[in-house]
Amino acid sequence: MARRLGRIFRGFQSLGSLAFMKSELSNLPASVSLKSMVRALPSLFSSNPRDFSFPNSSWGTEMRQLYEHYNSQCEAVTDGGEEQGGLWNRLPSYNRSLKYAAGGVYLSKIIQAKARLFTRNIRDPGAAFEYVIFANKKEQRCVCIFQAGHLLEGPPGNVHGGAIATMIDTVTGTHACVHSGPVMTANLNINYRSPIPLGSTVLIESSLDKKEGRKTLVSCKVTSADGARLHTEATALFVSIGVSQLMKG
Amino acid sequence: MARRLGRIFRGFQSLGSLAFMKSELSNLPASVSLKSMVRALPSLFSSNPRDFSFPNSSWGTEMRQLYEHYNSQCEAVTDGGEEQGGLWNRLPSYNRSLKYAAGGVYLSKIIQAKARLFTRNIRDPGAAFEYVIFANKKEQRCVCIFQAGHLLEGPPGNVHGGAIATMIDTVTGTHACVHSGPVMTANLNINYRSPIPLGSTVLIESSLDKKEGRKTLVSCKVTSADGARLHTEATALFVSIGVSQLMKG
Repeated sequence: MARRLGRIFRGFQSLGSLAFMKSELSNLPASVSLKSMVRALPSLFSSNPRDFSFPNSSWGTEMRQLYEHYNSQCEAVTDGGEEQGGLWNRLPSYNRSLKYAAGGVYLSKIIQAKARLFTRNIRDPGAAFEYVIFANKKEQRCVCIFQAGHLLEGPPGNVHGGAIATMIDTVTGTHACVHSGPVMTANLNINYRSPIPLGSTVLIESSLDKKEGRKTLVSCKVTSADGARLHTEATALFVSIGVSQLMKG
Repeated sequence: MARRLGRIFRGFQSLGSLAFMKSELSNLPASVSLKSMVRALPSLFSSNPRDFSFPNSSWGTEMRQLYEHYNSQCEAVTDGGEEQGGLWNRLPSYNRSLKYAAGGVYLSKIIQAKARLFTRNIRDPGAAFEYVIFANKKEQRCVCIFQAGHLLEGPPGNVHGGAIATMIDTVTGTHACVHSGPVMTANLNINYRSPIPLGSTVLIESSLDKKEGRKTLVSCKVTSADGARLHTEATALFVSIGVSQLMKG
C-alpha cells in the first residue's frame, strides 16, 4: 500500500501548501519516465477526470502561443510508440484531491465528497485560473503560463494579491516536489512590484535555490508574457514531509 | 468628482492588493461616523448589492457565536434613531468592484461587466470564503472570522496555502486602509505553522505595527477559533496611493 501510494504521489501536481509530485528524475530507472507515471493517473479516479493543463476555448492568443512554444519541446511518443526525449514536461492538473480519489476518510463525508482544489474550483473556462505548468528537467526550473480570469479581481481591473499568491504557491510548490518529493509550504515571501491586469497572460518562472536537509528553497518571478514587465517576485520555503503525515486528517 | 470618489473609497473594504477604505477615525468630524458612510454605499450600485458580512445559513455554530460576540459590541442605532457607540465596527463586503459600480472604463467591456472580487466570486453559501471583518477603533486592530469551505482545498482535507494568503491580504489590507486610506500591497511574508482543516472556522487578527510616510506595516496571525492553535503568522507592508493611481487602467 505504501509503495502504491508512493507511486501515486509522484504523479501529482502541487495541491497548495502541500505538494505531491516526485519525479526523482535522477533516481528513476531509465525505463520509468515522469510522463509514463503521469499517464497512469486517471485510472485512479472513479470517472475520467479532466486534465486542466490542456488548452480550452477560453485561452487567448498569448496563452496558446506560449503553450505551443513549451509543448513543442516536450517528450513525445512517435507513431511507432517510441518515446522521444524533450527539454520540458507538461504537468497534468486535476481538480480533486488525492485523498478523496484514494477513498481516504479524513473529514466529514459531505466535505470530503465535495472538496475541490482551490485553483480549479470554478467550472466556467476562462473565468478564474487558467494555467499550465512545464518542468525543465535539466535546468531545475519550471515555467507556468497563467491567464487571469475576471473572477480574480482585487484592485479595480487587476488581479487580487491573494490570487497571485495562490499561483506562486502552486508553481513553487509543484517545483519543490518535482525536486524533493512530498513537501509542505513553510514560508512565502512575496514582493508585489506592479499590478496584473484582469484578462492578461503572464509567465511565472521558478528556479531552485537550494536544498538543505528537509528544506527546499525556490524563488520565483511573475512577468508579462513578453518578459518585459516585472509584476511580482517571491521566495518560497518548503519542508519535506512523509507519506504518513500526508495522510493524517 | 475627485471629492465624491474620495468619499466612496472611504467606505470600501479591501479589494485584494489595493484597499479602499479610509475611516480617518481621528480626522473626521464627530458627526460623520464610519458606519454612516458605510450605510450610504449600496445606493452607488445600480441594483442592491448583497452585503456578504451578514450571517447566512451556511455559517456553523462557531462562526455564528464569534459573529455575535463582536457584533454585540458594535455601534448601534436605537429605536429613537440615536447612535450608540461601540468598540467595534462590522465592515461591509461586496462582490463587485468600485470601478465597475462607478461606471469607469478600464478594460474590455466584457471583462469589466463580469469582474467579481476574488474572495466573493462563488455564489454557493459556505462553499468558499465565508468571512466577516470587525475593526476596533481604539485598539488599532481588526479581527476576521473566517469559515473555510470545501472549494478551498489544497493539501487533502486542508485549506490551500493560497487561500490562506488571500485572507491574510484581505484582512491586513482592510486594516491598512482603515488606518491610512487607499493603499496597495507591497509585501506579504507568510509563515505557515499548521494546516487549517477544510470546514473549520478560524480567527484572523491583525494589529498595526507602524506607519512611516507612505508605508503602513500590519502584522497578523491566524488561530483556531478558541485561539489555542496557531495556524499562520504574517507581516504585510502597504504603500499609500492616490486616487488618480487607483483609477488608472
